Amino acid sequence: MKKLINDVPDVVAESLAGFGRAHADIVTVSDDPRFVSRADGPVRGKVGLISGGGSGHEPLHAGFVGKGMLDAAVPGEVFTSPTPMPIVEATKAADGGAGVLHIVKNYTGDVLNFETAADLVGAEGIQVRAVVTNDDVAVLDSLYTAGRRGVAGTVLVEKIAGAAADRGDDLDGVTAIAERVNANVRSIGLALTDGTVPHAGEPGFVLPEDEIEFGVGIHGEPGRERIKIEPADRLVDRMMDAILTDLPFSSGDQVLLFVNGMGGTPLSELYILFRRAAEILDEKGITLSRSLVGSYVTSLEMQGASISVLKLDDELTSLWDAPVHTAALRWGL
Amino acid sequence: MKKLINDVPDVVAESLAGFGRAHADIVTVSDDPRFVSRADGPVRGKVGLISGGGSGHEPLHAGFVGKGMLDAAVPGEVFTSPTPMPIVEATKAADGGAGVLHIVKNYTGDVLNFETAADLVGAEGIQVRAVVTNDDVAVLDSLYTAGRRGVAGTVLVEKIAGAAADRGDDLDGVTAIAERVNANVRSIGLALTDGTVPHAGEPGFVLPEDEIEFGVGIHGEPGRERIKIEPADRLVDRMMDAILTDLPFSSGDQVLLFVNGMGGTPLSELYILFRRAAEILDEKGITLSRSLVGSYVTSLEMQGASISVLKLDDELTSLWDAPVHTAALRWGL
Repeated sequence: MKKLINDVPDVVAESLAGFGRAHADIVTVSDDPRFVSRADGPVRGKVGLISGGGSGHEPLHAGFVGKGMLDAAVPGEVFTSPTPMPIVEATKAADGGAGVLHIVKNYTGDVLNFETAADLVGAEGIQVRAVVTNDDVAVLDSLYTAGRRGVAGTVLVEKIAGAAADRGDDLDGVTAIAERVNANVRSIGLALTDGTVPHAGEPGFVLPEDEIEFGVGIHGEPGRERIKIEPADRLVDRMMDAILTDLPFSSGDQVLLFVNGMGGTPLSELYILFRRAAEILDEKGITLSRSLVGSYVTSLEMQGASISVLKLDDELTSLWDAPVHTAALRWGL
Repeated sequence: MKKLINDVPDVVAESLAGFGRAHADIVTVSDDPRFVSRADGPVRGKVGLISGGGSGHEPLHAGFVGKGMLDAAVPGEVFTSPTPMPIVEATKAADGGAGVLHIVKNYTGDVLNFETAADLVGAEGIQVRAVVTNDDVAVLDSLYTAGRRGVAGTVLVEKIAGAAADRGDDLDGVTAIAERVNANVRSIGLALTDGTVPHAGEPGFVLPEDEIEFGVGIHGEPGRERIKIEPADRLVDRMMDAILTDLPFSSGDQVLLFVNGMGGTPLSELYILFRRAAEILDEKGITLSRSLVGSYVTSLEMQGASISVLKLDDELTSLWDAPVHTAALRWGL
């Protein structure tokens, strides 16, 4: 294992310490229990938004804490759900008196620990709702999941629900927006190589030089099938077919197209995927209205990518465009 | 070679096509000759800024085209200088009547081709100046360079000179600001693995599992020495020692600290490096005033990182903070 780290048990704490130092104008990092919150939070009268889950997917979720997006994030150890206690503290830190929305990717441990935390803070009088994201069309049940996995589409839920909270929607309203984004986004990923969890010391899987994992999860979970690598355009054809037939998307739709890198893939390759995905939208009469390209929901240093397509309406588009100021996503501020 | 590409000769063109499609609100991609320019350019009366060089370092340079930064960028083939003709056309596209500054990383081919282009457009009456960046302290002469190499510090030159042009400085003024940034920034990189140039089909070098290339260039050029991998903090100690003793930086200085990923390194590891680099600044009495962390000047999918430190003054700080709207760097707009 060759990584830019110190002692394995310190990886998450040291990375967060650096993150907090680099972005001290945006976030505060709390160590015990461990969570990240807005440096200027909580915002009185605003619905609080929090998310969390295992580390190893950076910038998700801590990179999305800030004005117009999350109020707090709870990073567990690498690929390990955070326990209820830091979720409780993050929920309190995010509470401005208007209730808190938990945005939870659909993994059994995350769902359970966020539920436990919600019960605990509920008993203290903080109103909590939860939206469980499950945008991955690759497989129904998976290694750590009953039902579909929550993957890159979660970023879109966080951005758009964050804007709804920022404009003053109440807890029911912000929850409804988050559910609407989740209901309208579909994603699928693929991997050329797997990342290495520091504690494990070796990759979860090793593929032959000519094979890829199609439909891979963000923890290297198995996807739909291992296939021989094909030209990028053919892989995008497969990915877009799986996505577009699922919702289904149809001619006349306006969409946001998000090509996400898994951590070890150069940006230049993401744009090659984007090019073909946009062509397919053109062929189907679907309008490319907004774009996002970059490594936002990663799996350590995995080489691979995912594509997400979100069906927009005027309200979701305007919430997407609203100002945001986080470490990883910023515009208008 | 396992990459998300189609035919090798099409890599740069297809990636740029996707880039142009994703960011059509910011840039226009011209195919023949190949360059990227501001969708709303040229700006009348403003000094134009262009940069360029071999592809494979994305988002450098095309990702930095837009308001407050570059007016055009000229991407060559992977790790290959662009020829003079596209530089000529990009210079014309960037010219708003107040002259054009060429920001050129110090590689022999780039310097030569930008000079030839400057002579050609000069004959047509466009005033051109050039600033050659050479921030890499690793080695004096290198595989493709006489003198020091231009590496990640180039992004800081482009941002700050772009802001100077945006506030209305004339060609001499913008040139002086670019030179001041270059004179005050120092960088050094290291690699755990090398990237693979598509045409070559295999990495330029393969290191044993316990070795790194210390002082590596952004084309995988040899650095100072191959050393056994050490804990991240010890590597940062070496990097910061090379940087801080070079300018030299001293107690009381205000600096921008930039930890840059080489393309295949997870963001979480960059923050581990940042943490220790910031600690060293503290120990030396140097004030961490501004931060940048991310993969901005890459070497395909190389695993590795570089650190750059820029000595700030009030003017450079305010130009750094000025609004920018490009595909890869955006704030205030």
